[in-house]
Amino acid sequence: MSHNSYGHLFRVTTWGESHGKALGAVVDGCPPGVPLTEGDIQPWLDARRPGQSRHTTQRKEADEVEILSGTYDGLTTGTPISLMIRNTDQRSKDYSDIAKQFRPGHADLTYHLKYGLRDPRGGGRSSARETAARVAAGGVARAALGALVPGLKITGYMVQMGEKGIDRSRFDAGEIGKNDFWCPDPGAVEEWAEYLEFLRKDDHNSVGAVIEVVAEGVPPGLGAPVYGKLDTELAAAMMSINAVKGVEIGAGMGAAALTGRDNADELFWGENEGLSFSSNNAGGILGGISSGQPVVVRFAVKPTSSILSPRQSITVDGEPVELITKGRHDPCVGIRAVPVGEAMMAAVLLDHLLLDRGQTGGVRGEIGRR
Amino acid sequence: MSHNSYGHLFRVTTWGESHGKALGAVVDGCPPGVPLTEGDIQPWLDARRPGQSRHTTQRKEADEVEILSGTYDGLTTGTPISLMIRNTDQRSKDYSDIAKQFRPGHADLTYHLKYGLRDPRGGGRSSARETAARVAAGGVARAALGALVPGLKITGYMVQMGEKGIDRSRFDAGEIGKNDFWCPDPGAVEEWAEYLEFLRKDDHNSVGAVIEVVAEGVPPGLGAPVYGKLDTELAAAMMSINAVKGVEIGAGMGAAALTGRDNADELFWGENEGLSFSSNNAGGILGGISSGQPVVVRFAVKPTSSILSPRQSITVDGEPVELITKGRHDPCVGIRAVPVGEAMMAAVLLDHLLLDRGQTGGVRGEIGRR
Amino acid sequence: MSHNSYGHLFRVTTWGESHGKALGAVVDGCPPGVPLTEGDIQPWLDARRPGQSRHTTQRKEADEVEILSGTYDGLTTGTPISLMIRNTDQRSKDYSDIAKQFRPGHADLTYHLKYGLRDPRGGGRSSARETAARVAAGGVARAALGALVPGLKITGYMVQMGEKGIDRSRFDAGEIGKNDFWCPDPGAVEEWAEYLEFLRKDDHNSVGAVIEVVAEGVPPGLGAPVYGKLDTELAAAMMSINAVKGVEIGAGMGAAALTGRDNADELFWGENEGLSFSSNNAGGILGGISSGQPVVVRFAVKPTSSILSPRQSITVDGEPVELITKGRHDPCVGIRAVPVGEAMMAAVLLDHLLLDRGQTGGVRGEIGRR
Amino acid sequence: MSHNSYGHLFRVTTWGESHGKALGAVVDGCPPGVPLTEGDIQPWLDARRPGQSRHTTQRKEADEVEILSGTYDGLTTGTPISLMIRNTDQRSKDYSDIAKQFRPGHADLTYHLKYGLRDPRGGGRSSARETAARVAAGGVARAALGALVPGLKITGYMVQMGEKGIDRSRFDAGEIGKNDFWCPDPGAVEEWAEYLEFLRKDDHNSVGAVIEVVAEGVPPGLGAPVYGKLDTELAAAMMSINAVKGVEIGAGMGAAALTGRDNADELFWGENEGLSFSSNNAGGILGGISSGQPVVVRFAVKPTSSILSPRQSITVDGEPVELITKGRHDPCVGIRAVPVGEAMMAAVLLDHLLLDRGQTGGVRGEIGRR
Repeated sequence: MSHNSYGHLFRVTTWGESHGKALGAVVDGCPPGVPLTEGDIQPWLDARRPGQSRHTTQRKEADEVEILSGTYDGLTTGTPISLMIRNTDQRSKDYSDIAKQFRPGHADLTYHLKYGLRDPRGGGRSSARETAARVAAGGVARAALGALVPGLKITGYMVQMGEKGIDRSRFDAGEIGKNDFWCPDPGAVEEWAEYLEFLRKDDHNSVGAVIEVVAEGVPPGLGAPVYGKLDTELAAAMMSINAVKGVEIGAGMGAAALTGRDNADELFWGENEGLSFSSNNAGGILGGISSGQPVVVRFAVKPTSSILSPRQSITVDGEPVELITKGRHDPCVGIRAVPVGEAMMAAVLLDHLLLDRGQTGGVRGEIGRR
Repeated sequence: MSHNSYGHLFRVTTWGESHGKALGAVVDGCPPGVPLTEGDIQPWLDARRPGQSRHTTQRKEADEVEILSGTYDGLTTGTPISLMIRNTDQRSKDYSDIAKQFRPGHADLTYHLKYGLRDPRGGGRSSARETAARVAAGGVARAALGALVPGLKITGYMVQMGEKGIDRSRFDAGEIGKNDFWCPDPGAVEEWAEYLEFLRKDDHNSVGAVIEVVAEGVPPGLGAPVYGKLDTELAAAMMSINAVKGVEIGAGMGAAALTGRDNADELFWGENEGLSFSSNNAGGILGGISSGQPVVVRFAVKPTSSILSPRQSITVDGEPVELITKGRHDPCVGIRAVPVGEAMMAAVLLDHLLLDRGQTGGVRGEIGRR
Repeated sequence: MSHNSYGHLFRVTTWGESHGKALGAVVDGCPPGVPLTEGDIQPWLDARRPGQSRHTTQRKEADEVEILSGTYDGLTTGTPISLMIRNTDQRSKDYSDIAKQFRPGHADLTYHLKYGLRDPRGGGRSSARETAARVAAGGVARAALGALVPGLKITGYMVQMGEKGIDRSRFDAGEIGKNDFWCPDPGAVEEWAEYLEFLRKDDHNSVGAVIEVVAEGVPPGLGAPVYGKLDTELAAAMMSINAVKGVEIGAGMGAAALTGRDNADELFWGENEGLSFSSNNAGGILGGISSGQPVVVRFAVKPTSSILSPRQSITVDGEPVELITKGRHDPCVGIRAVPVGEAMMAAVLLDHLLLDRGQTGGVRGEIGRR
Repeated sequence: MSHNSYGHLFRVTTWGESHGKALGAVVDGCPPGVPLTEGDIQPWLDARRPGQSRHTTQRKEADEVEILSGTYDGLTTGTPISLMIRNTDQRSKDYSDIAKQFRPGHADLTYHLKYGLRDPRGGGRSSARETAARVAAGGVARAALGALVPGLKITGYMVQMGEKGIDRSRFDAGEIGKNDFWCPDPGAVEEWAEYLEFLRKDDHNSVGAVIEVVAEGVPPGLGAPVYGKLDTELAAAMMSINAVKGVEIGAGMGAAALTGRDNADELFWGENEGLSFSSNNAGGILGGISSGQPVVVRFAVKPTSSILSPRQSITVDGEPVELITKGRHDPCVGIRAVPVGEAMMAAVLLDHLLLDRGQTGGVRGEIGRR
């Protein structure tokens, strides 16, 4: 991570502001010969797109991605892939009154302090709109993973909205795509819907969420002992998303409450079954390196600071001001973070797949009698 | 983060295994003219050193740091600072029986899978011993911060051991250095001591912990909007520490349960008092950039997997084996993680201080009537 | 340098193929508050643009640059600046016959060997057209340098075309802009023009060139002792340009023929005049760090391999083929490399200005009685 | 390249000053399982070591390398390899009189200007002694290349000393190791010896040199189209060596004088012979990517500025001073640059081998009927 880029061999640089002409990503280092057209990326963007249910911002963006370079005849060529998404539904007037005010809990203040100026239209670079570029880049990563590791599968979903968590005994992956919340617990959906309706219409408020992203079929051996730990890279990837304030791998913060005996994922091996484990507290990563178990990451998205309830703040001149953020905002921005978390997981895994075959050639130490 | 290095302008590379000849760090990019001798680094190493109380591993290491380059006449010259710590108390025989076994919850398995071989003596590169190099590098960062931002102060402490958290109403920073646990709650110390005694002597078990690190006096403007967010960099820094499985900034995972109204840190300004806030849910970072509030990070350290209780595992040949890890291990390795977390905080803040003055010249946008 | 990016704090990533939809650059890390509009960049592109004289390719490209992000109200905001140039005059049919042939001296062969496929239209990514993105990015660097170091001045010119070098005793900087060759020696212009005319019309051939780029007013202290030497960075920057095969700093390859006595640039100092030197064999860089003297770089551009004379080659099937490259090509592609070299110089100097003030704060060691 | 590091996947960081306690390198990212002991590195250091003939500095250094980490049982483990060389023959008093003077053509001045202070003992970080660390790191690269690409062979030699070049018609690779100058032209040896004798004893002078390094058996496909061109990386690697002021690939600066017809390396293919070329003006690199031909690099080393002849200079107080550099210096420091150039070639090729198999898996596009 540096500046506006992430990744080592599969390197993504994003650009663009909420209300500028466009936003996009340059994806460098993609393996050559991967089938890739706009049609491989668009569906992921459509999933993230706002304005699709009453629970997300009513801003309507087509979010149509255009591939400007890096492919020929429907295949990646190994050269940089430039992705662009035009902004079409900017209403700058919604924001004009806050150009000289600092919204509490928002980047307004710190951009001003650091840069001395900022693009006030729709939050500029700090807008959740930036995540569209991540999702587009993630679409490229998925295409490459599909070619290199056919069995790999990434699934994201919400496990907590506000104080309301899912009941894991009712977990049903098939439900995730059927509701407005990427919720795997059918029993939680209605409650969440009512709660969001209340927050938006009555309480003029917003709320946070926890997202979980799981990758199954990850080859063992991805990551590195220290600093370059796969945990580190995933933590950075998720924390780099707007509004994320906490990241967990496997048992996560809860690992602190475990004893060594309970935390140890016991190991088994069978000639046919291969490696298996009694549990997955490690979240699929031991010593910074993937073990072959599912890689499990969770992250917390704070409630958006843009709400219709008045909050106390100041202007750039230091004058006190009571501030209400009008405009079209998400009552639970965490919902749209689900495809974003999936995209970051895809980018990190692909990057480390390439890094690993760079250093080791992708050859694995064996287990079992030889 | 890449390979065994972290940082952008203040760049640290560590090397060394638990039972090799030595371990160390190369610190590159340090500002010139900073007063620095071994005496500025040694105290931080002494704080991390094992064998100082009955609650940490009885391995005895002098952990004496030697500066091999990069200073002249007691001042940094701007060239790479090479730090070395000789290993003196290795007892390799303790580990010889596990060379062909995989300890559950440990890097043994994944090193084997990735590299095809590993240094089995004391965990090799995956040993917590690596953190001595971090603490030494952190000592350099602290010296530079001391010269550049005199008011900056970093404080780390344990806020949870196993399921037992501190009572924040009894928080007393003055207590932190007075007990074996870096515990700021005098009421928790005895309970923790008894619990650890039980785990070690009777239960042959270990336990996790949560560490909090706070930096006061951080200048506003450090960090960057996306990817290079200060949150991202701190999350990566803490997650890169051995055995860390979760990282939080400010309200952290708890931000998910907050509403936008509660989460918003309201802003105030006074001609004399300057900027102030009603709360610090943001952990001192808004939009990825420091606001001037204290920067607050927490991380969870899992219980060490090296315990005297038998766990089920396999050998490299796939044979089942019941495994007990003898040797000298920490019942709560989180204790020694406190100075490590402080060191990583120091390194990240210095790096971003240099990055910021690189891009912006360190000039700040102003608030108030001019 | 890595992948398709260069620079550390001022980081440029370019993308695009000769005959794709567009090409461009993402410029990350630019200081905030720098006045920047398309009007600041376009003139540099116009200088590089083909089709302006009979001595360069007759392909006609408007090369109109569009700023898609990173500025607000005509000022840079510190966020990534996305620059795009649409391709308008592609004639893909000119190239269709060579899709399965490898032009000698061209990237055709190695792209095929590395990637297994390539974009054959106009050379794809290997086309000199990529340099338009560099020149656009260089325009941003110049704008920032203009704000930060007002006296800094970058001048590029051709000093050799084929075997015909300039006569330095006739050097006149005022002449550079007045002829088709960026030639500072008015006595060489007519001879060069005739030679190129012969090569193009009669000999169906092309020729190489040497470009010199000089930066005056460079602050001392830019660069670093080893690896990050300013010489290293400039060598990499120039060598990264298409078709460049040699780079020199100051006396360059000629330094090999000098004795230590002749090579030493003697030092003088006067209270009013400051530092001065007897000569500039070092090209303004001592020990990898700028001395305050003009920074002098030269690079050799090989003749383009796309000529109308038949050359022996093979097809992808291994069949021998006699190959003539039709299409619109530069008889001396070095001419258009002059603005490219200037752009790279600007980018490197700005990057190192930011790096230096990051590490040292931009404070200088003094000379003279204090 | 950044700070004191180079390489992407195979990353080397060096540290140490001429007269400090030690110098060394940390080599990160080496493939695991490579046989490596001190005995694999020491011979290359012995070749570079000063004090072996009357033509190099009489400083006597054992230059004994110690591997401190990263290997187990004689094999690399994939973790960082720390290499250390103790300084033993420092005579700091030789340099004490120049602590406040700036030697012309030397880093003294610019270190002072940038950092405000410097280690004056033996040139500190700017000493050619730093290259010992490069040679040690290069030894690791060679060991890895030996395991991965058995046929690859790197040969360096001097082709010019002062104005005296070799006669290529007498080129005999077998001669290189038999004389004090790594000279492949037996007819030049005596003349060079006499010339150096004169420079050292009578003229109190020094002289520059040109080194050529050739790598045979380089797999095709290493490098990348732009910025990451193999030419770029080699140019940076060689230019990063102390005192180097010019770098050429293949025809190099001479490519400027060639026409396209002469410069084109024509292509041939035979079912048994595979790919062949009529010439190698490209130096084995087309479009930034290796073609399978020998990779050819040349670089110019300027004459050392440390000579016994008086030169005009100034003190830090701005006072004029006539300066003679006593001490033990190389009359032609280029001689000892030969093993250094070989080491850099090895490091760059290994790095790009790993990069290539990271991105492409090392699979090659084929030629010939299928």
